[in-house]
Amino acid sequence: MTRPLAPGACVGVLGGGQLGRMLAVAASRLGLRCHIYEPGAMPPAGDVAHRVTTAPYDDTEALTAFAESVDVITYEFENIPTRALDLLETLRPVRPGRRALAVSQDRLTEKAFLAGLGLNVAPYAAVDDAVDLAEALDEIGVPAILKTRRLGYDGKGQVRLSSSAEAEAALAAMNDAPAILEGHIDFSHEVSVIAARALDGQVACFDPGENEHKGGILATTTVPARLSAAQRTDAVLLAGRILNALNYVGVLGVELFVTPGGLIVNEIAPRVHNSGHWTQNGCVIDQFEQHIRAVAGWPLGDGARHANVTMENLIGDDIERVPVLAADPANALHLYGKTEARAGRKMGHVNRITGPAGG
Amino acid sequence: MTRPLAPGACVGVLGGGQLGRMLAVAASRLGLRCHIYEPGAMPPAGDVAHRVTTAPYDDTEALTAFAESVDVITYEFENIPTRALDLLETLRPVRPGRRALAVSQDRLTEKAFLAGLGLNVAPYAAVDDAVDLAEALDEIGVPAILKTRRLGYDGKGQVRLSSSAEAEAALAAMNDAPAILEGHIDFSHEVSVIAARALDGQVACFDPGENEHKGGILATTTVPARLSAAQRTDAVLLAGRILNALNYVGVLGVELFVTPGGLIVNEIAPRVHNSGHWTQNGCVIDQFEQHIRAVAGWPLGDGARHANVTMENLIGDDIERVPVLAADPANALHLYGKTEARAGRKMGHVNRITGPAGG
Repeated sequence: MTRPLAPGACVGVLGGGQLGRMLAVAASRLGLRCHIYEPGAMPPAGDVAHRVTTAPYDDTEALTAFAESVDVITYEFENIPTRALDLLETLRPVRPGRRALAVSQDRLTEKAFLAGLGLNVAPYAAVDDAVDLAEALDEIGVPAILKTRRLGYDGKGQVRLSSSAEAEAALAAMNDAPAILEGHIDFSHEVSVIAARALDGQVACFDPGENEHKGGILATTTVPARLSAAQRTDAVLLAGRILNALNYVGVLGVELFVTPGGLIVNEIAPRVHNSGHWTQNGCVIDQFEQHIRAVAGWPLGDGARHANVTMENLIGDDIERVPVLAADPANALHLYGKTEARAGRKMGHVNRITGPAGG
Repeated sequence: MTRPLAPGACVGVLGGGQLGRMLAVAASRLGLRCHIYEPGAMPPAGDVAHRVTTAPYDDTEALTAFAESVDVITYEFENIPTRALDLLETLRPVRPGRRALAVSQDRLTEKAFLAGLGLNVAPYAAVDDAVDLAEALDEIGVPAILKTRRLGYDGKGQVRLSSSAEAEAALAAMNDAPAILEGHIDFSHEVSVIAARALDGQVACFDPGENEHKGGILATTTVPARLSAAQRTDAVLLAGRILNALNYVGVLGVELFVTPGGLIVNEIAPRVHNSGHWTQNGCVIDQFEQHIRAVAGWPLGDGARHANVTMENLIGDDIERVPVLAADPANALHLYGKTEARAGRKMGHVNRITGPAGG
């Protein structure tokens, strides 16, 4: 049995974006250091990390030195190249483990895994060519969404089809990548559950949040979400089932569609999740510390919610609203230290406290 | 008029201990970087700083390079050598400013300043030699405490006198340093106010906390403190008066004795303060972010208290209690990453949530 990491021990984080930055801050609260591995220069996480390695994911020497300098490895994004993982796994524990990555890196594998657990997912079919797509459209109907199986995020690599006449153009947009057709779900709103599982199997879930997207990117998450007591229980139970099935260690984000017929799992993310940022100001232990606790072999902390919160992402030019937002005492700002505000770039977020916890 | 610091700007912090560490974390939330200046190797703040300079305070070259790399300078302790300040001030704004340091570096100057504001302080007298001490004991009586005027903390450089027969030994313990004799105050308990003042003069105070010491070192701070409504108002008003008199920018700790006759100011600290650590889990904006907001020219945040909290310092071997403390969901841990647990060394603290905010 592994002992919990003690002060001075080092957590290696693959990826140096804002999630890595907030993981590094959480690690510091537990007396731990972070070593960030990131191909890009000047990563946001570098500002608060003990050490940064700037190297690509195919640099065997850099990966080896990184792994040997840390006690455990985790990551802030799920698309880590397989070869890098193959190497890292031989040197240090990687948490969450391979299974969670394999499942979440491929939308088809993910859907099959979730359906295999008896959870509700959208109707889906694999699409490798025009014949597959025609058959899938026959079976699933329109509207539907064609998505690349791998490497999509924030609405990228996705095309909506409202009639089968759009099939050819949609397939062309996939650039020959293996794809999946997903049937349209008539949902009233989307919620997500941020769930955590410790090394010893202990499970804890944060209260579900209700998400709104704009242009395919998460705009806001609000707690409490509009959910019945039964739905709330369902959400937490299904998240726990996913964690256990994956023998998961760390924080997992589960996106759910709320429909009159019940909850439908949209997708899972094997990492801290944008829709869990509200926990920084709504809970004593936030999703970042919960994740570090899990991967460091600590017991999970208390994720009970003490406030009603709306998290709003600050995207691109939204950063110019900071002076106004900062002057409002209801707002807690979390900026990522990025100096260039490109359109669509997540620059920070604001947690707006709307009152003490209550329905 | 200075503009508020924007993402990517850098706050220079003199001192790399746990206070610097938590200041660096707070700065990261606002998108700012920290550059730590610390003579000692491997400072706790270095784990979460963008940059660390390891150099003594008399290294003119290092001080200059440090100042030129940052946008504003602050500090985590008040005993910065005068010559270092003389230099740094010519290169960048130092906040809080010189006046606050001059007052708090010398117990005699501090007492005179506070008394000059019309605030209640213990009876005191300057003691440079045996004649002074004999006169002071005549005037003030026993019990009394003889303290070095400068460089004392956590009870160091202090001797209690219960009779004038102890005068010689007490004076010897001062090692020829200029001293001050302070009369005994018959207080029921000690509280402290963590107050903040922004660049534009805006003032905000956290709710007073009640302090318990063990062996001259702060052991616990509890909110709410035992104070009448009138005493609470007094505490906040007198802190505001001190801030304004010093034209202060940043967070200031004010220690107060509670007596039947009212509040008596014990001492002030021109920095974030151990007795304000509870704000990390009791408020949306904690003392560290409040300090960074002030020195970075931002508006102050909301310091309203949402929880009842007891902060307990983890000193020396207390660090061995961490596994048990971590398993209790009421506890939020804050460890400093120190690997060597010497007796009396502050290794971390735990904020125990005892309920939602209430008297």
